[in-house]
Amino acid sequence: MPSDEKPCVKARKIKLVIGYEGTNYRGWQRQDNAPTVQETIEQALASIIGRSVTVHGASRTDSGVHAEGQVAHFLVDSPIPDASFAVILNDRLPADIAMASSQEVTVGFDSSRDAIRKTYRYRIYTGWPKDVEHFRRRWRCEHRLDVLSMNRAAALLLGTHDFRAFASAKDTRHNFVRTVFAAHAYQAAGDELDFEITADRFLYHMVRNIVGTIVEIGRGHWPVEKMAATLASRDRTQAGPTAPGHGLCLLNIEYPDNCENIASAT
Amino acid sequence: MPSDEKPCVKARKIKLVIGYEGTNYRGWQRQDNAPTVQETIEQALASIIGRSVTVHGASRTDSGVHAEGQVAHFLVDSPIPDASFAVILNDRLPADIAMASSQEVTVGFDSSRDAIRKTYRYRIYTGWPKDVEHFRRRWRCEHRLDVLSMNRAAALLLGTHDFRAFASAKDTRHNFVRTVFAAHAYQAAGDELDFEITADRFLYHMVRNIVGTIVEIGRGHWPVEKMAATLASRDRTQAGPTAPGHGLCLLNIEYPDNCENIASAT
Repeated sequence: MPSDEKPCVKARKIKLVIGYEGTNYRGWQRQDNAPTVQETIEQALASIIGRSVTVHGASRTDSGVHAEGQVAHFLVDSPIPDASFAVILNDRLPADIAMASSQEVTVGFDSSRDAIRKTYRYRIYTGWPKDVEHFRRRWRCEHRLDVLSMNRAAALLLGTHDFRAFASAKDTRHNFVRTVFAAHAYQAAGDELDFEITADRFLYHMVRNIVGTIVEIGRGHWPVEKMAATLASRDRTQAGPTAPGHGLCLLNIEYPDNCENIASAT
Repeated sequence: MPSDEKPCVKARKIKLVIGYEGTNYRGWQRQDNAPTVQETIEQALASIIGRSVTVHGASRTDSGVHAEGQVAHFLVDSPIPDASFAVILNDRLPADIAMASSQEVTVGFDSSRDAIRKTYRYRIYTGWPKDVEHFRRRWRCEHRLDVLSMNRAAALLLGTHDFRAFASAKDTRHNFVRTVFAAHAYQAAGDELDFEITADRFLYHMVRNIVGTIVEIGRGHWPVEKMAATLASRDRTQAGPTAPGHGLCLLNIEYPDNCENIASAT
């Protein structure tokens, strides 16, 4: 037994699956003078375990962007059972942040590094009149959109490409190559048109810039081939406008099946 | 021709059908020091027609209560085509208030007095985990609810009764007799249970007090017969708690078929 009075509890890593409505937050990542999802969860967690803790998210969602399946991890030495963190956090968090689950994983797990696929959904409302039920989650587009051309354009994104044309100028990474596994548009109920895209990772503003481009194609302003030309140009100015953040939702993040054993495998 | 410079435009009455999310408003009715739906519409309308105007609503929905089919009327002497008011108002109003339609009616039309039936829906969420998409529109109830007992209790409300037991103590009317045409509960998608009720008119807090009572029955805390006993008691203390406002939505208000000719008929 150690000689100090702290109980001998081994550090554990907890994986959280998180949903939130981004409206009232300046994105995921902690920052000065603005409420963020990360900070809000960290504060609730600190009130449970009695000390400050860093919650590492897999995706730094932007201001106003929502999530159904954000993933995060944190280290803790509290004896609280892993599944109880979700229950207790749900009680302490505001109504717009919810824990879907909390689960112990191996200490080597890293929610960001170990992610192999992420899926985003972008919701567009094309109806009339104004929609007062979902306005925080859908981009209102007053043009008629042609789903077929949008899907033809989406198909041009499939596979491994340099997506620099769809990255924000603020994205300072050196490697813009990403692999898109799936991308398609579909008509949802109530004059809603959704666009879903799955890739290994995403560049900053990548989904929103792709949506801005595909909407130009869907409304007939640009031909389908413009998508391939934009991709090949690797030039941000060739893509459409950045679609607003509030239409976007991080749906799901996938990890390898053996993810919980990452620590022992490496 | 009149001698002054004002164009000779006959006063017209416009009927509005309005949807709103009540979250950011202290109810429909204009009041000091708090934003209300009525005031917000009146200000947008004043900016269009260049003078102040009173918009008379059919129902004084409470703070946080939503609407899909609120009805209101106003008098105007502007030559703007009647259907254009909805279009222009939708542009000028915030995202949480929408005009479904605007239509000229006879000058005698009164949205409140002439209403013959109103329908409200109350949305209850019984799922787990927390729902971050609809939390502004559903009451989260942690009990399992039995739809059958709720519907047996709802059936006891049908017909013409003195509903004093379900009126707020603040309701100072003398006549508490109302006719309920329909009342039922049904399972909706996503762990949602909805309650809908149609009556000729409603007392203050009547739907929310009925919902509070029917939930006590649905969770098994009270027997079905408690609904009849409460109704017969005409005693507010016999009913359940007042369900929160944010679960409630004014769905629809009906008028006689000849409503547009009311003025000429009377």
